[in-house]
Amino acid sequence: MHHFSDRLNAAIRSKKTPALVGLDPRFDWLPEEIVSAAEAKHSSKAEIVAAAFEEFCFRMIDVVAPLVPAVKPQAAFFEEWGPAGCLALQRVIKRAREAGLVVICDAKRGDIGSTAEAYARAYLAGADPESAIWAADCLTVNPYLGSDTLQPFVKVAVERGAGIYVLVRTSNPGAGTFQDRKTDGHTLYECVAAVVNDLALNTTGNGHYGAIGAVVGATYPEELTQLRELMPHTPLLVPGYGSQGAGAGDVAGAFDAEGLGAIINSSRGINFAIRKEPYFEKFAPEEWEQAVEAATHDMIADLAEHTPAGKLQ
Amino acid sequence: MHHFSDRLNAAIRSKKTPALVGLDPRFDWLPEEIVSAAEAKHSSKAEIVAAAFEEFCFRMIDVVAPLVPAVKPQAAFFEEWGPAGCLALQRVIKRAREAGLVVICDAKRGDIGSTAEAYARAYLAGADPESAIWAADCLTVNPYLGSDTLQPFVKVAVERGAGIYVLVRTSNPGAGTFQDRKTDGHTLYECVAAVVNDLALNTTGNGHYGAIGAVVGATYPEELTQLRELMPHTPLLVPGYGSQGAGAGDVAGAFDAEGLGAIINSSRGINFAIRKEPYFEKFAPEEWEQAVEAATHDMIADLAEHTPAGKLQ
Repeated sequence: MHHFSDRLNAAIRSKKTPALVGLDPRFDWLPEEIVSAAEAKHSSKAEIVAAAFEEFCFRMIDVVAPLVPAVKPQAAFFEEWGPAGCLALQRVIKRAREAGLVVICDAKRGDIGSTAEAYARAYLAGADPESAIWAADCLTVNPYLGSDTLQPFVKVAVERGAGIYVLVRTSNPGAGTFQDRKTDGHTLYECVAAVVNDLALNTTGNGHYGAIGAVVGATYPEELTQLRELMPHTPLLVPGYGSQGAGAGDVAGAFDAEGLGAIINSSRGINFAIRKEPYFEKFAPEEWEQAVEAATHDMIADLAEHTPAGKLQ
Repeated sequence: MHHFSDRLNAAIRSKKTPALVGLDPRFDWLPEEIVSAAEAKHSSKAEIVAAAFEEFCFRMIDVVAPLVPAVKPQAAFFEEWGPAGCLALQRVIKRAREAGLVVICDAKRGDIGSTAEAYARAYLAGADPESAIWAADCLTVNPYLGSDTLQPFVKVAVERGAGIYVLVRTSNPGAGTFQDRKTDGHTLYECVAAVVNDLALNTTGNGHYGAIGAVVGATYPEELTQLRELMPHTPLLVPGYGSQGAGAGDVAGAFDAEGLGAIINSSRGINFAIRKEPYFEKFAPEEWEQAVEAATHDMIADLAEHTPAGKLQ
């Protein structure tokens, strides 16, 4: 199965949930045992952090791989630690693929012409993990530079059975500054959405979803419902559930009637569940993986109860 | 001298030119001797390419450091080769700093909150090269996610004496798709420009330019002139001269009356001058560094003749 949405939807059906786990390692919050082990092996701060990130993410993958269809490593947290961090990111992506997970590299890249193509070739491995050096199934992409700059990503994605998620409506408080500006009655994000849905329509697989998706924040439930209607062929990646404040009810509008069409991301709420109630009370610090597992189960149940994704169960 | 624009302007005055050389290594176009040497030392393709990129850029730096104030490595070309490429980028930035050049890392990053801060901490070393792992003076940033997402970059830039250039009007043919959309008579790029100029005004150094700049393409001369007027406190980074088709006359409007306020980038036209007339005719393939030097001198003379930058001479 070569097409990105077909592979993603198969994974969603197989795991019976659209829950997406972000891999957002933050050094100050890592389990003590992982930090100590990394410190025992390495001397420079960057190497210590990179080794700790790798181990933390490997163990996150071991916990969540049986439960969810996909993971989303955040490139920034790895890049912050230089080449050592980049190597850790590469290994984390590889490990997640080997664990059968669909991997979305959240790097929000975007550039013109041959430069955009270099990013696309770098990250989009799609169906064949050997075809790109950062062997992700999918990459997040920023559309500001113009619709022509999406084409190199679309071309490589289609060739390799990979996907991209284009930023349409983001989850941050100031998302509207530019994205909500109206021209002839239509916001910028609606305009980007129209471009993205055309690309999706032109890249459908066996199902009616394209290989080109959209990022739409859970923190704006009305826009999410509106965009699901405006973009019938576009798979949605929905950040903002959990730590950013959105609940399962807020993301219900992201799904189609079958419970497909969206994956809902939680990063901090899963990675660092042990730091928060009810898990903080329930588990000892060294039982952080059990907290991750419990938080993932709770998220899956929450989405099943309050959204059409319940039909997958 | 801690402030980004003050340091950049001092470098521009010292070299008497606003010419900015992009470092855009492309493996298929590298000099044969550099490729052979890299192949002799390494076995994997990624390591060969990364080693060749590093050597090529080191030698580019040796040629252009006495002539221009700044260089702009393009992150995508390095990232394409994975962790080995990232290590080469880190070394190239370090080498350029040591050669006295202002280094603008062209990575077009952008994300929300703590993720944006991770990118800022990763790239913005500013006045102290030890303060960031990719020790650039400056980073290019994408504004699509909203004005709140620029704040973490501004904060770190100001703390470290670094700068950012925010994408305002890009140089690609489809730049207008989203950037030209008008709301209440004003385009999106004008709206972004107003936000950026406010940030610039709040971050001025000894001169009247801020630490926050704007990317404005040379391929749209009218918009360039308009934006110079709309953004009096904003240093401009102008891509599109040379291989993308713009001439010196097209960028004249980017400067203030003293010949400051803008740096003009050429990448391919300098890096691979030997592949093009008049340098192809004039130099043997192994004289590629002489071609780079000649092309840089020609660009400097062209800018001096046709723009207010002539006043720097």
